[in-house]
Amino acid sequence: MTYEALFEQILTKRSYLCVGLDTDIKKIPSHLLKEQDPIFAFNKQIIDATAEYCVSYKPNIAFYEALGAKGWESLQKTIEYIPKSHFTIADAKRGDIGNTSGLYARTFFDPKSSGLDFDAVTVAPYMGSDSVLPFLEFEEKWVILLALTSNAGSSDFQRLKTENGALFEEVLRISQTWAGADRMIYVVGATQTQDIAHIRTIAPAHFLLVPGVGAQGGNLEEVSRFGMNKSCGLLVNASRSIIYAGNGVDFALHAGLEAKKLQEEMSVYLDKYLTA
Amino acid sequence: MTYEALFEQILTKRSYLCVGLDTDIKKIPSHLLKEQDPIFAFNKQIIDATAEYCVSYKPNIAFYEALGAKGWESLQKTIEYIPKSHFTIADAKRGDIGNTSGLYARTFFDPKSSGLDFDAVTVAPYMGSDSVLPFLEFEEKWVILLALTSNAGSSDFQRLKTENGALFEEVLRISQTWAGADRMIYVVGATQTQDIAHIRTIAPAHFLLVPGVGAQGGNLEEVSRFGMNKSCGLLVNASRSIIYAGNGVDFALHAGLEAKKLQEEMSVYLDKYLTA
Repeated sequence: MTYEALFEQILTKRSYLCVGLDTDIKKIPSHLLKEQDPIFAFNKQIIDATAEYCVSYKPNIAFYEALGAKGWESLQKTIEYIPKSHFTIADAKRGDIGNTSGLYARTFFDPKSSGLDFDAVTVAPYMGSDSVLPFLEFEEKWVILLALTSNAGSSDFQRLKTENGALFEEVLRISQTWAGADRMIYVVGATQTQDIAHIRTIAPAHFLLVPGVGAQGGNLEEVSRFGMNKSCGLLVNASRSIIYAGNGVDFALHAGLEAKKLQEEMSVYLDKYLTA
Repeated sequence: MTYEALFEQILTKRSYLCVGLDTDIKKIPSHLLKEQDPIFAFNKQIIDATAEYCVSYKPNIAFYEALGAKGWESLQKTIEYIPKSHFTIADAKRGDIGNTSGLYARTFFDPKSSGLDFDAVTVAPYMGSDSVLPFLEFEEKWVILLALTSNAGSSDFQRLKTENGALFEEVLRISQTWAGADRMIYVVGATQTQDIAHIRTIAPAHFLLVPGVGAQGGNLEEVSRFGMNKSCGLLVNASRSIIYAGNGVDFALHAGLEAKKLQEEMSVYLDKYLTA
Protein backbone atom coordinates (compact mmCIF):
# COMPACT_ATOMS: atom_id res chain seq x y z
CA MET A 1 0.00 0.00 0.00
CA THR A 2 1.31 3.50 -0.84
CA TYR A 3 1.52 6.51 1.48
CA GLU A 4 -1.24 8.20 -0.52
CA ALA A 5 -3.50 5.14 -0.46
CA LEU A 6 -3.11 4.91 3.31
CA PHE A 7 -4.05 8.57 3.75
CA GLU A 8 -7.03 8.07 1.44
CA GLN A 9 -8.26 5.18 3.60
CA ILE A 10 -7.95 7.42 6.66
CA LEU A 11 -10.06 10.14 5.03
CA THR A 12 -12.67 7.63 3.82
CA LYS A 13 -13.04 5.89 7.16
CA ARG A 14 -12.43 9.06 9.18
CA SER A 15 -10.22 6.87 11.32
CA TYR A 16 -6.53 6.26 11.94
CA LEU A 17 -7.19 3.31 14.19
CA CYS A 18 -5.05 0.19 14.10
CA VAL A 19 -6.53 -2.82 15.87
CA GLY A 20 -3.88 -4.94 17.56
CA LEU A 21 -4.59 -8.64 17.26
CA ASP A 22 -2.81 -9.75 20.44
CA THR A 23 -4.91 -12.86 20.52
CA ASP A 24 -4.22 -14.92 23.62
CA ILE A 25 -5.68 -18.42 23.82
CA LYS A 26 -5.95 -17.90 27.60
CA LYS A 27 -8.10 -14.77 27.23
CA ILE A 28 -10.57 -15.52 24.44
CA PRO A 29 -14.19 -16.43 25.33
CA SER A 30 -14.42 -20.04 26.44
CA HIS A 31 -17.13 -21.00 23.92
CA LEU A 32 -14.55 -20.59 21.14
CA LEU A 33 -12.26 -23.24 22.57
CA LYS A 34 -14.35 -25.99 20.97
CA GLU A 35 -13.64 -24.55 17.50
CA GLN A 36 -11.07 -26.28 15.34
CA ASP A 37 -8.94 -23.11 15.31
CA PRO A 38 -10.06 -20.94 18.25
CA ILE A 39 -7.51 -18.17 17.54
CA PHE A 40 -8.69 -17.71 13.97
CA ALA A 41 -12.35 -18.03 14.98
CA PHE A 42 -11.82 -15.17 17.44
CA ASN A 43 -9.89 -12.99 14.97
CA LYS A 44 -12.46 -13.54 12.22
CA GLN A 45 -15.28 -12.20 14.38
CA ILE A 46 -13.13 -9.31 15.65
CA ILE A 47 -12.27 -8.35 12.06
CA ASP A 48 -15.89 -8.56 10.92
CA ALA A 49 -16.96 -6.31 13.80
CA THR A 50 -14.19 -3.70 13.56
CA ALA A 51 -13.20 -3.46 9.87
CA GLU A 52 -15.38 -0.43 9.16
CA TYR A 53 -13.87 1.55 12.04
CA CYS A 54 -10.16 0.94 11.49
CA VAL A 55 -7.61 1.29 8.69
CA SER A 56 -5.07 -1.20 9.94
CA TYR A 57 -4.60 -4.52 11.75
CA LYS A 58 -1.50 -5.44 13.69
CA PRO A 59 -1.12 -9.08 14.75
CA ASN A 60 1.46 -9.32 17.52
CA ILE A 61 3.54 -12.22 16.22
CA ALA A 62 4.62 -13.41 19.70
CA PHE A 63 1.08 -14.53 20.47
CA TYR A 64 1.03 -16.77 17.41
CA GLU A 65 4.50 -18.24 17.51
CA ALA A 66 4.10 -19.07 21.22
CA LEU A 67 1.73 -21.78 19.91
CA GLY A 68 4.27 -23.20 17.48
CA ALA A 69 3.28 -24.42 14.00
CA LYS A 70 -0.41 -24.29 14.92
CA GLY A 71 -0.16 -20.61 15.82
CA TRP A 72 1.59 -19.92 12.55
CA GLU A 73 -1.38 -21.46 10.71
CA SER A 74 -3.83 -19.27 12.62
CA LEU A 75 -1.76 -16.24 11.66
CA GLN A 76 -1.78 -17.20 8.01
CA LYS A 77 -5.58 -17.62 7.97
CA THR A 78 -5.96 -14.29 9.77
CA ILE A 79 -3.83 -12.33 7.34
CA GLU A 80 -5.67 -13.87 4.39
CA TYR A 81 -9.00 -12.89 5.94
CA ILE A 82 -8.20 -9.20 6.53
CA PRO A 83 -9.72 -7.04 3.73
CA LYS A 84 -7.15 -5.76 1.20
CA SER A 85 -8.18 -2.18 2.00
CA HIS A 86 -6.52 -2.48 5.42
CA PHE A 87 -2.85 -1.84 6.11
CA THR A 88 -1.42 -4.96 7.76
CA ILE A 89 1.44 -4.82 10.22
CA ALA A 90 3.45 -7.80 11.46
CA ASP A 91 4.47 -6.65 14.93
CA ALA A 92 7.55 -8.84 15.08
CA LYS A 93 10.41 -6.54 16.19
CA ARG A 94 12.85 -8.39 13.93
CA GLY A 95 16.35 -7.33 12.83
CA ASP A 96 19.53 -9.31 12.11
CA ILE A 97 22.58 -9.28 9.80
CA GLY A 98 21.80 -8.74 6.12
CA ASN A 99 21.11 -12.22 4.76
CA THR A 100 19.08 -13.14 7.85
CA SER A 101 17.01 -9.95 7.71
CA GLY A 102 16.40 -10.88 4.08
CA LEU A 103 14.84 -14.13 5.29
CA TYR A 104 12.69 -12.31 7.85
CA ALA A 105 11.55 -10.06 5.00
CA ARG A 106 10.59 -13.16 3.01
CA THR A 107 8.74 -14.45 6.06
CA PHE A 108 6.39 -11.50 6.25
CA PHE A 109 6.34 -10.18 2.68
CA ASP A 110 6.59 -13.20 0.39
CA PRO A 111 3.48 -15.40 0.46
CA LYS A 112 5.16 -17.94 -1.83
CA SER A 113 7.71 -18.56 0.92
CA SER A 114 5.77 -18.45 4.17
CA GLY A 115 2.13 -17.96 3.21
CA LEU A 116 2.14 -14.46 4.72
CA ASP A 117 1.68 -11.17 2.85
CA PHE A 118 1.88 -8.22 5.25
CA ASP A 119 2.26 -4.57 4.22
CA ALA A 120 4.72 -3.75 6.99
CA VAL A 121 6.88 -5.26 9.70
CA THR A 122 8.23 -3.71 12.90
CA VAL A 123 12.04 -3.76 13.09
CA ALA A 124 14.49 -3.09 15.95
CA PRO A 125 17.27 -0.65 14.98
CA TYR A 126 20.17 -1.86 17.16
CA MET A 127 22.03 -3.70 14.37
CA GLY A 128 21.94 -0.71 11.99
CA SER A 129 21.42 -0.10 8.29
CA ASP A 130 22.17 -3.51 6.81
CA SER A 131 19.71 -5.12 9.24
CA VAL A 132 16.93 -2.84 7.96
CA LEU A 133 17.58 -2.41 4.24
CA PRO A 134 16.69 -6.00 3.18
CA PHE A 135 13.08 -5.33 4.22
CA LEU A 136 12.98 -2.35 1.85
CA GLU A 137 13.93 -4.46 -1.16
CA PHE A 138 10.30 -5.59 -1.35
CA GLU A 139 8.34 -3.05 -3.38
CA GLU A 140 5.52 -1.16 -1.66
CA LYS A 141 6.37 -2.86 1.64
CA TRP A 142 7.17 -0.85 4.74
CA VAL A 143 9.56 -0.90 7.68
CA ILE A 144 8.20 0.31 11.01
CA LEU A 145 11.29 1.14 13.02
CA LEU A 146 11.36 1.28 16.82
CA ALA A 147 12.23 4.83 17.89
CA LEU A 148 10.81 5.58 21.34
CA THR A 149 8.78 2.77 22.85
CA SER A 150 6.08 2.94 25.51
CA ASN A 151 7.58 0.60 28.13
CA ALA A 152 9.46 1.66 31.26
CA GLY A 153 12.70 0.08 30.02
CA SER A 154 12.71 2.43 27.02
CA SER A 155 14.75 4.89 29.11
CA ASP A 156 17.58 2.37 29.67
CA PHE A 157 19.08 2.95 26.23
CA GLN A 158 16.70 4.94 23.99
CA ARG A 159 17.15 8.09 26.07
CA LEU A 160 20.92 7.80 26.56
CA LYS A 161 22.61 11.04 25.57
CA THR A 162 24.87 10.83 22.53
CA GLU A 163 26.87 13.63 20.91
CA ASN A 164 23.82 14.59 18.82
CA GLY A 165 20.97 14.14 21.27
CA ALA A 166 19.31 11.06 22.71
CA LEU A 167 19.77 7.68 21.03
CA PHE A 168 16.16 7.65 19.76
CA GLU A 169 16.77 10.99 18.02
CA GLU A 170 19.85 9.54 16.33
CA VAL A 171 17.74 6.55 15.22
CA LEU A 172 15.19 8.95 13.74
CA ARG A 173 17.85 11.01 11.94
CA ILE A 174 20.15 8.28 10.66
CA SER A 175 17.35 6.00 9.48
CA GLN A 176 15.93 8.78 7.31
CA THR A 177 18.99 8.34 5.10
CA TRP A 178 17.82 4.77 4.44
CA ALA A 179 14.23 5.45 3.32
CA GLY A 180 11.72 8.27 3.12
CA ALA A 181 8.29 8.73 4.63
CA ASP A 182 6.82 6.66 1.80
CA ARG A 183 8.45 3.46 3.09
CA MET A 184 9.25 4.00 6.75
CA ILE A 185 7.12 4.52 9.85
CA TYR A 186 8.34 5.07 13.41
CA VAL A 187 7.07 3.47 16.61
CA VAL A 188 6.50 6.18 19.20
CA GLY A 189 4.89 5.26 22.52
CA ALA A 190 1.82 7.25 23.53
CA THR A 191 2.88 7.32 27.16
CA GLN A 192 5.50 9.86 26.07
CA THR A 193 3.14 12.53 24.65
CA GLN A 194 5.56 15.32 25.57
CA ASP A 195 7.97 13.78 23.06
CA ILE A 196 5.59 13.52 20.12
CA ALA A 197 5.73 17.22 19.22
CA HIS A 198 9.51 17.05 19.38
CA ILE A 199 9.65 13.93 17.19
CA ARG A 200 7.45 15.73 14.66
CA THR A 201 10.19 18.34 14.24
CA ILE A 202 12.70 15.58 13.38
CA ALA A 203 10.35 13.53 11.19
CA PRO A 204 7.64 15.91 9.93
CA ALA A 205 6.23 13.79 7.11
CA HIS A 206 6.42 10.24 8.50
CA PHE A 207 3.58 8.18 9.81
CA LEU A 208 4.02 7.34 13.47
CA LEU A 209 2.69 4.08 14.85
CA VAL A 210 1.51 4.91 18.35
CA PRO A 211 0.79 1.97 20.61
CA GLY A 212 -0.18 2.44 24.21
CA VAL A 213 -3.52 4.19 23.84
CA GLY A 214 -6.04 2.34 25.97
CA ALA A 215 -4.73 -0.44 28.21
CA GLN A 216 -1.27 1.16 28.34
CA GLY A 217 -2.73 4.54 29.40
CA GLY A 218 -1.91 6.94 26.55
CA ASN A 219 -4.10 9.93 25.72
CA LEU A 220 -5.63 9.99 22.23
CA GLU A 221 -6.44 13.69 22.24
CA GLU A 222 -2.87 14.73 23.07
CA VAL A 223 -1.34 12.24 20.65
CA SER A 224 -3.55 13.65 17.89
CA ARG A 225 -2.89 17.30 18.75
CA PHE A 226 0.88 16.93 18.84
CA GLY A 227 1.32 14.17 16.30
CA MET A 228 -0.97 14.91 13.38
CA ASN A 229 0.45 16.33 10.15
CA LYS A 230 -1.14 17.19 6.80
CA SER A 231 -1.45 13.51 5.78
CA CYS A 232 -2.67 12.59 9.26
CA GLY A 233 0.67 10.83 9.87
CA LEU A 234 -0.71 8.74 12.69
CA LEU A 235 -1.70 5.14 13.16
CA VAL A 236 -2.93 4.74 16.71
CA ASN A 237 -3.06 1.20 17.98
CA ALA A 238 -5.40 -0.26 20.55
CA SER A 239 -5.30 -3.96 21.30
CA ARG A 240 -6.63 -5.32 24.59
CA SER A 241 -9.13 -2.48 25.16
CA ILE A 242 -10.89 -3.48 21.92
CA ILE A 243 -10.45 -7.20 21.47
CA TYR A 244 -11.22 -8.07 25.10
CA ALA A 245 -14.01 -5.47 25.54
CA GLY A 246 -16.42 -8.38 25.95
CA ASN A 247 -15.96 -11.96 27.05
CA GLY A 248 -19.27 -13.65 26.22
CA VAL A 249 -20.74 -15.01 23.00
CA ASP A 250 -21.31 -11.37 21.98
CA PHE A 251 -17.64 -10.41 22.49
CA ALA A 252 -17.31 -9.14 18.91
CA LEU A 253 -20.24 -6.76 19.38
CA HIS A 254 -18.42 -5.14 22.31
CA ALA A 255 -15.18 -5.00 20.31
CA GLY A 256 -17.02 -3.26 17.48
CA LEU A 257 -18.56 -0.72 19.88
CA GLU A 258 -15.16 0.02 21.40
CA ALA A 259 -13.59 0.49 17.96
CA LYS A 260 -16.49 2.72 16.91
CA LYS A 261 -15.99 4.89 19.98
CA LEU A 262 -12.34 5.44 19.10
CA GLN A 263 -13.20 6.07 15.44
CA GLU A 264 -15.75 8.74 16.39
CA GLU A 265 -13.19 10.42 18.63
CA MET A 266 -10.66 10.29 15.78
CA SER A 267 -13.17 11.83 13.40
CA VAL A 268 -13.36 14.88 15.69
CA TYR A 269 -9.57 15.18 15.86
CA LEU A 270 -9.25 14.91 12.08
CA ASP A 271 -11.48 17.99 11.80
CA LYS A 272 -9.58 19.75 14.52
CA TYR A 273 -5.92 18.93 13.95
CA LEU A 274 -5.41 17.88 10.33
CA THR A 275 -3.14 20.70 9.14
CA ALA A 276 -4.01 22.29 5.83
CA MET B 1 22.04 -26.00 31.53
CA THR B 2 24.19 -24.31 34.21
CA TYR B 3 27.36 -22.28 33.69
CA GLU B 4 29.36 -25.06 35.31
CA ALA B 5 27.78 -27.78 33.18
CA LEU B 6 28.56 -25.81 30.04
CA PHE B 7 32.21 -25.42 31.07
CA GLU B 8 32.36 -29.13 31.86
CA GLN B 9 31.09 -29.97 28.37
CA ILE B 10 33.79 -27.72 26.92
CA LEU B 11 36.51 -29.52 28.89
CA THR B 12 35.14 -32.95 27.99
CA LYS B 13 34.87 -32.24 24.28
CA ARG B 14 37.89 -29.93 24.22
CA SER B 15 35.74 -27.68 22.09
CA TYR B 16 33.80 -24.44 22.40
CA LEU B 17 32.28 -24.77 18.98
CA CYS B 18 28.69 -23.83 18.28
CA VAL B 19 27.32 -25.11 14.98
CA GLY B 20 24.89 -22.66 13.38
CA LEU B 21 21.95 -24.42 11.74
CA ASP B 22 21.22 -21.74 9.11
CA THR B 23 19.51 -24.35 6.99
CA ASP B 24 18.41 -22.92 3.67
CA ILE B 25 16.13 -25.01 1.48
CA LYS B 26 17.85 -23.38 -1.54
CA LYS B 27 21.31 -24.53 -0.45
CA ILE B 28 20.89 -28.09 0.80
CA PRO B 29 21.96 -31.01 -1.44
CA SER B 30 19.34 -31.69 -4.07
CA HIS B 31 18.93 -35.39 -3.23
CA LEU B 32 17.32 -34.34 0.07
CA LEU B 33 14.50 -32.47 -1.64
CA LYS B 34 12.59 -35.71 -2.18
CA GLU B 35 12.46 -36.29 1.59
CA GLN B 36 9.21 -35.57 3.41
CA ASP B 37 10.96 -32.89 5.51
CA PRO B 38 14.19 -31.92 3.70
CA ILE B 39 15.22 -29.33 6.31
CA PHE B 40 15.04 -31.82 9.15
CA ALA B 41 16.66 -34.58 7.06
CA PHE B 42 19.59 -32.22 6.46
CA ASN B 43 19.86 -31.11 10.11
CA LYS B 44 19.67 -34.69 11.38
CA GLN B 45 22.68 -35.75 9.33
CA ILE B 46 24.59 -32.58 10.24
CA ILE B 47 23.94 -33.20 13.94
CA ASP B 48 24.98 -36.86 13.69
CA ALA B 49 28.22 -35.85 11.98
CA THR B 50 29.17 -32.89 14.21
CA ALA B 51 27.82 -33.66 17.72
CA GLU B 52 31.11 -35.04 19.03
CA TYR B 53 33.02 -31.91 17.97
CA CYS B 54 30.74 -29.17 19.28
CA VAL B 55 29.08 -28.18 22.55
CA SER B 56 26.24 -26.13 21.13
CA TYR B 57 23.78 -25.80 18.25
CA LYS B 58 22.24 -22.53 17.12
CA PRO B 59 19.33 -22.71 14.69
CA ASN B 60 18.84 -19.32 13.04
CA ILE B 61 15.08 -18.93 13.44
CA ALA B 62 14.66 -16.76 10.32
CA PHE B 63 15.49 -19.73 8.09
CA TYR B 64 12.67 -21.76 9.64
CA GLU B 65 9.95 -19.16 9.91
CA ALA B 66 10.55 -18.05 6.31
CA LEU B 67 8.88 -21.39 5.46
CA GLY B 68 5.82 -20.71 7.63
CA ALA B 69 4.17 -23.47 9.69
CA LYS B 70 6.17 -26.14 7.85
CA GLY B 71 9.46 -24.52 8.86
CA TRP B 72 8.28 -24.34 12.44
CA GLU B 73 7.69 -28.11 12.38
CA SER B 74 11.20 -28.74 11.03
CA LEU B 75 12.58 -26.58 13.84
CA GLN B 76 10.66 -28.53 16.46
CA LYS B 77 11.94 -31.87 15.16
CA THR B 78 15.47 -30.48 15.04
CA ILE B 79 15.47 -29.24 18.61
CA GLU B 80 14.07 -32.56 19.83
CA TYR B 81 16.80 -34.42 17.98
CA ILE B 82 19.77 -32.48 19.41
CA PRO B 83 21.41 -34.45 22.27
CA LYS B 84 20.61 -33.07 25.74
CA SER B 85 24.35 -32.64 26.39
CA HIS B 86 24.41 -29.75 23.89
CA PHE B 87 23.58 -26.14 24.71
CA THR B 88 20.81 -25.03 22.34
CA ILE B 89 20.44 -21.43 21.20
CA ALA B 90 17.42 -19.97 19.41
CA ASP B 91 19.02 -17.22 17.34
CA ALA B 92 15.87 -15.14 17.15
CA LYS B 93 16.93 -11.59 18.12
CA ARG B 94 13.61 -11.03 19.92
CA GLY B 95 12.66 -8.29 22.38
CA ASP B 96 9.38 -6.45 23.06
CA ILE B 97 7.39 -4.91 25.92
CA GLY B 98 7.08 -7.09 29.02
CA ASN B 99 4.00 -9.23 28.35
CA THR B 100 5.03 -9.80 24.73
CA SER B 101 8.61 -10.75 25.68
CA GLY B 102 6.98 -13.17 28.11
CA LEU B 103 5.27 -14.83 25.15
CA TYR B 104 8.51 -14.99 23.19
CA ALA B 105 10.05 -16.64 26.24
CA ARG B 106 7.22 -19.20 26.22
CA THR B 107 7.86 -19.75 22.51
CA PHE B 108 11.45 -20.84 22.98
CA PHE B 109 11.50 -22.14 26.55
CA ASP B 110 8.13 -23.80 27.19
CA PRO B 111 7.64 -27.00 25.19
CA LYS B 112 4.04 -27.31 26.45
CA SER B 113 3.26 -24.07 24.64
CA SER B 114 5.19 -24.20 21.37
CA GLY B 115 6.88 -27.59 21.31
CA LEU B 116 10.31 -25.94 21.63
CA ASP B 117 12.72 -26.30 24.56
CA PHE B 118 15.86 -24.23 23.95
CA ASP B 119 18.48 -23.40 26.59
CA ALA B 120 18.95 -19.83 25.39
CA VAL B 121 17.57 -17.18 23.07
CA THR B 122 19.27 -14.16 21.50
CA VAL B 123 17.64 -10.85 22.49
CA ALA B 124 18.02 -7.30 21.14
CA PRO B 125 18.60 -4.71 23.90
CA TYR B 126 16.97 -1.59 22.40
CA MET B 127 13.76 -1.78 24.47
CA GLY B 128 15.60 -2.13 27.79
CA SER B 129 15.23 -4.08 31.02
CA ASP B 130 11.55 -5.05 30.93
CA SER B 131 12.00 -6.47 27.43
CA VAL B 132 14.75 -8.80 28.68
CA LEU B 133 13.70 -9.80 32.20
CA PRO B 134 10.71 -12.01 31.18
CA PHE B 135 13.16 -14.42 29.52
CA LEU B 136 15.01 -14.78 32.83
CA GLU B 137 11.90 -15.91 34.68
CA PHE B 138 12.44 -19.38 33.23
CA GLU B 139 14.82 -21.28 35.50
CA GLU B 140 18.17 -22.39 34.06
CA LYS B 141 17.38 -20.63 30.78
CA TRP B 142 19.67 -17.99 29.32
CA VAL B 143 19.48 -14.64 27.57
CA ILE B 144 22.12 -13.96 24.91
CA LEU B 145 22.09 -10.19 24.54
CA LEU B 146 23.35 -8.38 21.45
CA ALA B 147 26.30 -6.20 22.43
CA LEU B 148 28.60 -5.63 19.45
CA THR B 149 27.54 -7.42 16.29
CA SER B 150 29.67 -8.46 13.32
CA ASN B 151 27.83 -6.62 10.53
CA ALA B 152 28.88 -3.32 8.94
CA GLY B 153 25.75 -1.55 10.26
CA SER B 154 26.83 -2.28 13.84
CA SER B 155 28.67 1.06 13.82
CA ASP B 156 25.47 3.04 13.06
CA PHE B 157 24.27 2.90 16.66
CA GLN B 158 26.31 0.39 18.73
CA ARG B 159 29.43 2.59 18.55
CA LEU B 160 27.70 5.92 19.15
CA LYS B 161 29.42 7.78 21.97
CA THR B 162 27.34 8.27 25.10
CA GLU B 163 28.36 9.98 28.34
CA ASN B 164 29.87 6.70 29.61
CA GLY B 165 31.46 5.29 26.48
CA ALA B 166 29.99 3.67 23.37
CA LEU B 167 26.41 2.40 23.38
CA PHE B 168 27.56 -1.25 23.33
CA GLU B 169 29.60 -0.60 26.49
CA GLU B 170 26.52 0.84 28.18
CA VAL B 171 24.57 -2.25 27.12
CA LEU B 172 27.26 -4.45 28.68
CA ARG B 173 27.32 -2.44 31.92
CA ILE B 174 23.60 -1.81 32.46
CA SER B 175 22.52 -5.34 31.55
CA GLN B 176 24.83 -6.79 34.22
CA THR B 177 22.45 -5.31 36.79
CA TRP B 178 19.74 -7.58 35.35
CA ALA B 179 21.52 -10.94 35.52
CA GLY B 180 24.94 -12.40 36.21
CA ALA B 181 27.28 -14.50 34.13
CA ASP B 182 25.31 -17.60 35.12
CA ARG B 183 22.27 -16.48 33.07
CA MET B 184 23.50 -13.98 30.49
CA ILE B 185 25.81 -14.26 27.48
CA TYR B 186 26.82 -11.47 25.11
CA VAL B 187 26.99 -11.52 21.32
CA VAL B 188 30.33 -10.10 20.21
CA GLY B 189 31.25 -10.21 16.52
CA ALA B 190 34.56 -11.83 15.65
CA THR B 191 35.29 -9.26 12.96
CA GLN B 192 35.99 -6.84 15.82
CA THR B 193 38.84 -8.77 17.50
CA GLN B 194 40.42 -5.56 18.73
CA ASP B 195 37.32 -5.06 20.87
CA ILE B 196 37.21 -8.48 22.51
CA ALA B 197 40.03 -7.76 24.98
CA HIS B 198 38.28 -4.52 25.91
CA ILE B 199 34.92 -6.25 26.37
CA ARG B 200 36.64 -8.78 28.64
CA THR B 201 37.53 -5.94 31.02
CA ILE B 202 33.84 -4.94 31.24
CA ALA B 203 32.44 -8.48 31.44
CA PRO B 204 35.25 -10.71 32.75
CA ALA B 205 33.21 -13.76 33.73
CA HIS B 206 30.55 -13.91 31.01
CA PHE B 207 30.42 -16.29 28.12
CA LEU B 208 30.64 -14.49 24.79
CA LEU B 209 28.86 -15.88 21.75
CA VAL B 210 31.15 -15.07 18.84
CA PRO B 211 29.65 -15.44 15.38
CA GLY B 212 31.58 -14.51 12.30
CA VAL B 213 34.39 -17.06 12.40
CA GLY B 214 34.56 -18.74 9.01
CA ALA B 215 32.34 -17.35 6.25
CA GLN B 216 32.24 -13.92 7.90
CA GLY B 217 36.05 -13.77 8.13
CA GLY B 218 36.84 -13.72 11.86
CA ASN B 219 40.08 -15.13 13.26
CA LEU B 220 39.71 -18.01 15.74
CA GLU B 221 43.22 -17.69 17.18
CA GLU B 222 42.81 -14.00 18.04
CA VAL B 223 39.29 -14.46 19.40
CA SER B 224 40.60 -17.22 21.70
CA ARG B 225 43.68 -15.28 22.81
CA PHE B 226 41.77 -12.12 23.72
CA GLY B 227 38.44 -13.66 24.72
CA MET B 228 39.18 -16.72 26.82
CA ASN B 229 38.79 -16.60 30.60
CA LYS B 230 39.19 -19.23 33.31
CA SER B 231 35.88 -20.94 32.40
CA CYS B 232 36.69 -20.66 28.70
CA GLY B 233 33.95 -18.03 28.41
CA LEU B 234 33.63 -18.48 24.66
CA LEU B 235 31.15 -20.09 22.33
CA VAL B 236 32.43 -19.63 18.81
CA ASN B 237 29.86 -20.13 16.09
CA ALA B 238 30.42 -21.34 12.56
CA SER B 239 27.47 -21.91 10.27
CA ARG B 240 27.89 -21.92 6.51
CA SER B 241 31.57 -23.02 6.56
CA ILE B 242 30.48 -26.25 8.30
CA ILE B 243 26.98 -27.10 7.11
CA TYR B 244 27.69 -26.33 3.45
CA ALA B 245 31.24 -27.79 3.42
CA GLY B 246 29.96 -30.45 1.02
CA ASN B 247 27.05 -30.54 -1.39
CA GLY B 248 26.81 -34.19 -2.47
CA VAL B 249 25.28 -37.26 -0.82
CA ASP B 250 28.31 -37.21 1.53
CA PHE B 251 27.70 -33.60 2.64
CA ALA B 252 27.54 -34.60 6.31
CA LEU B 253 30.97 -36.23 6.14
CA HIS B 254 32.45 -32.92 4.96
CA ALA B 255 30.57 -31.02 7.66
CA GLY B 256 31.97 -33.40 10.28
CA LEU B 257 35.52 -32.95 8.97
CA GLU B 258 35.15 -29.17 9.06
CA ALA B 259 33.81 -29.26 12.63
CA LYS B 260 36.63 -31.61 13.64
CA LYS B 261 39.19 -29.19 12.20
CA LEU B 262 37.82 -26.34 14.30
CA GLN B 263 37.60 -28.58 17.39
CA GLU B 264 41.25 -29.58 17.02
CA GLU B 265 42.27 -25.93 16.69
CA MET B 266 40.19 -25.11 19.78
CA SER B 267 41.86 -27.91 21.72
CA VAL B 268 45.21 -26.21 21.14
CA TYR B 269 43.87 -22.83 22.27
CA LEU B 270 42.36 -24.35 25.42
CA ASP B 271 45.86 -25.54 26.38
CA LYS B 272 47.37 -22.21 25.46
CA TYR B 273 44.90 -19.58 26.67
CA LEU B 274 42.69 -21.07 29.39
CA THR B 275 43.73 -18.93 32.34
CA ALA B 276 44.47 -20.75 35.58
